[in-house]
Amino acid sequence: MPKDVVTNRMEALRTAMIAEGIELLALGPGPHMQWLLGFQPHADERLLLLLVTQQSAEFAMPALEADSASQHTDLPMHPWADAEGPDDALDSALAAVNGNGAMTVAVDEGMRADFALALLDRLPGARHVFTPSTLGRLRMKKDEDERARLKASALLADEAMTAAFAAIRPGMTENAVKQIVEERFARDGASLEFAIIGTGGNGAFPHHHTGDTVIQAGDAIVIDIGARLGGMPSDITRMCVVGEKPEGYDEIHAIVEGAVQAAMRAAKPGVTAREIDAAARNHIAQAGYGENFLHRTGHGLGIEVHEPPYMTGSSDTVLEEGMVFSIEPGIYLTGRFGLRLEEIVYLTADGAERFSELPRDVTVVGG
Amino acid sequence: MPKDVVTNRMEALRTAMIAEGIELLALGPGPHMQWLLGFQPHADERLLLLLVTQQSAEFAMPALEADSASQHTDLPMHPWADAEGPDDALDSALAAVNGNGAMTVAVDEGMRADFALALLDRLPGARHVFTPSTLGRLRMKKDEDERARLKASALLADEAMTAAFAAIRPGMTENAVKQIVEERFARDGASLEFAIIGTGGNGAFPHHHTGDTVIQAGDAIVIDIGARLGGMPSDITRMCVVGEKPEGYDEIHAIVEGAVQAAMRAAKPGVTAREIDAAARNHIAQAGYGENFLHRTGHGLGIEVHEPPYMTGSSDTVLEEGMVFSIEPGIYLTGRFGLRLEEIVYLTADGAERFSELPRDVTVVGG
Repeated sequence: MPKDVVTNRMEALRTAMIAEGIELLALGPGPHMQWLLGFQPHADERLLLLLVTQQSAEFAMPALEADSASQHTDLPMHPWADAEGPDDALDSALAAVNGNGAMTVAVDEGMRADFALALLDRLPGARHVFTPSTLGRLRMKKDEDERARLKASALLADEAMTAAFAAIRPGMTENAVKQIVEERFARDGASLEFAIIGTGGNGAFPHHHTGDTVIQAGDAIVIDIGARLGGMPSDITRMCVVGEKPEGYDEIHAIVEGAVQAAMRAAKPGVTAREIDAAARNHIAQAGYGENFLHRTGHGLGIEVHEPPYMTGSSDTVLEEGMVFSIEPGIYLTGRFGLRLEEIVYLTADGAERFSELPRDVTVVGG
Repeated sequence: MPKDVVTNRMEALRTAMIAEGIELLALGPGPHMQWLLGFQPHADERLLLLLVTQQSAEFAMPALEADSASQHTDLPMHPWADAEGPDDALDSALAAVNGNGAMTVAVDEGMRADFALALLDRLPGARHVFTPSTLGRLRMKKDEDERARLKASALLADEAMTAAFAAIRPGMTENAVKQIVEERFARDGASLEFAIIGTGGNGAFPHHHTGDTVIQAGDAIVIDIGARLGGMPSDITRMCVVGEKPEGYDEIHAIVEGAVQAAMRAAKPGVTAREIDAAARNHIAQAGYGENFLHRTGHGLGIEVHEPPYMTGSSDTVLEEGMVFSIEPGIYLTGRFGLRLEEIVYLTADGAERFSELPRDVTVVGG
């Protein structure tokens, strides 16, 4: 990542820390660190923390990783060797950033519990918060480089979805479809992040574990896939049916499609995330399927597949230009089928612009 | 996992909790839960905790995952929907297991920081520990099923290593070698966990990020690979040289080989992990390269690629029959090359039995 981007992001973070009254912020290896510094050290059970104050930003770092990490950052490191353990290095880093007196500490919510507690146990008087109000907020707005990489990643996911549609036949397993998707991604240099292939009744579990269930004629299949390309993930859900549609399928498809459109119309700068959720949810509820829409309407997408903003009924986050998130209502009918349609949208002054170029129609496959 | 295995493990865990004075234990989705219950729910940012006391074991669970999880466990669940958030479900689960009065809480060290703190913030008077003395200790000893799966996984890693040796030519990139390894694993149904391919000077970073460095004639290459087969990972490191060996290579190889043998001879039930580390480290130090052996001698291997017992200079863990761990000393010469040899061993009454059937010789490739 260019040095000026790192400098700008660190400055923006410190400004946000002042605004929120946060004196010390601690990150483990992970997506926050990736966003801030443009790299992630190898993550394992060895304590690795970046401590940030207004005064300094320094690492407590396993000695094993120090050489490799120093190829990516100039920030000072307090290394520790396997034989001695991390305690002295963490003490030394905390003193170096002048963090011992911090009363409010922001902790990377996704890092290992033992990393967070090693720090908080040293600051018994401090109160802890997480990073949504600082780093999380900054990460929500994508810059032009991030937008372009997310778009490229999304277009490749369109190709992988198309490859799945072309391959599906009765008698194949869900895992075989997953493999076709993975190979299509890999051909263009992308690594699979997840693939939910839910055939027939399995589709009624929103987070079904793709397995060895055999696809039957007449199944409806949920295909929800994503891969990482150029550091950015994709995430798309489309539906296909094998030969004939299950009974009542067109009606459910029309309702979910209506919910996608309602949420996309609602998505504009200045609107809250809960209003997007309500737009989709009300549409489905009015059609009588409110109980069958089991999850939030969407999530942000950036370095992480799930990141703020979350489109939930309780989110007051105000949407802004440059945010990227999913709109993915679904209806789940236990024992019959599930139906979800998912777009990733980029918010412009005029509203939601979708990345995918695939229609949301039901594709009939296996002919 | 058979129900009696789950029952036995839960009982062993509760016995260990009593012995350690731990009233409440909390696990996130992850390897501890996998070991205890034989499955892992989908893990994302949504709070998911298993709370265990002597009285009960219950989940605070995202509603989205509840149906799918209930196919794998009979334990009671306190579900929460995206729109309401996890607070009530966690309160309800904590009350149901009678955990509110817990004074000592064991926290899954590898789970997300926000999961751990959501629980600990509800128990302001409690002291927290992690799980090495309870779950971690139980997980160290492998049963016959685990041993067999680890062995099968190791033998496939031998095949993948052999495939890499057969393919390497000057002009290939590290990433191309990684891809060959990954494909060989995938052919037998294993998914790559990691592949460190460090050519030439890159090999001097123990955790080098495999990249686009082009392999040159005369390079020594560190190949450290592992994949998951039947739920169990492999982990093996071997060395090859492209055509000719770098200057001084045979001497370094003989020293590291001697260190492996010294550690393998030392590995017996009743010995401490630190003695294994000392056996390898003293051998290297006596040869004058103590400063160049940058890391611990080994780590346990089971559901996780790194898990207890750790062979470090500060570990008092007493080794027992049935433990599985790596022995992997190395010497790292900045700017020249690195040399590491790694065996996974299973501890029997007679000593260390290695899983791999590959020799530790240097393989000359690219001819």
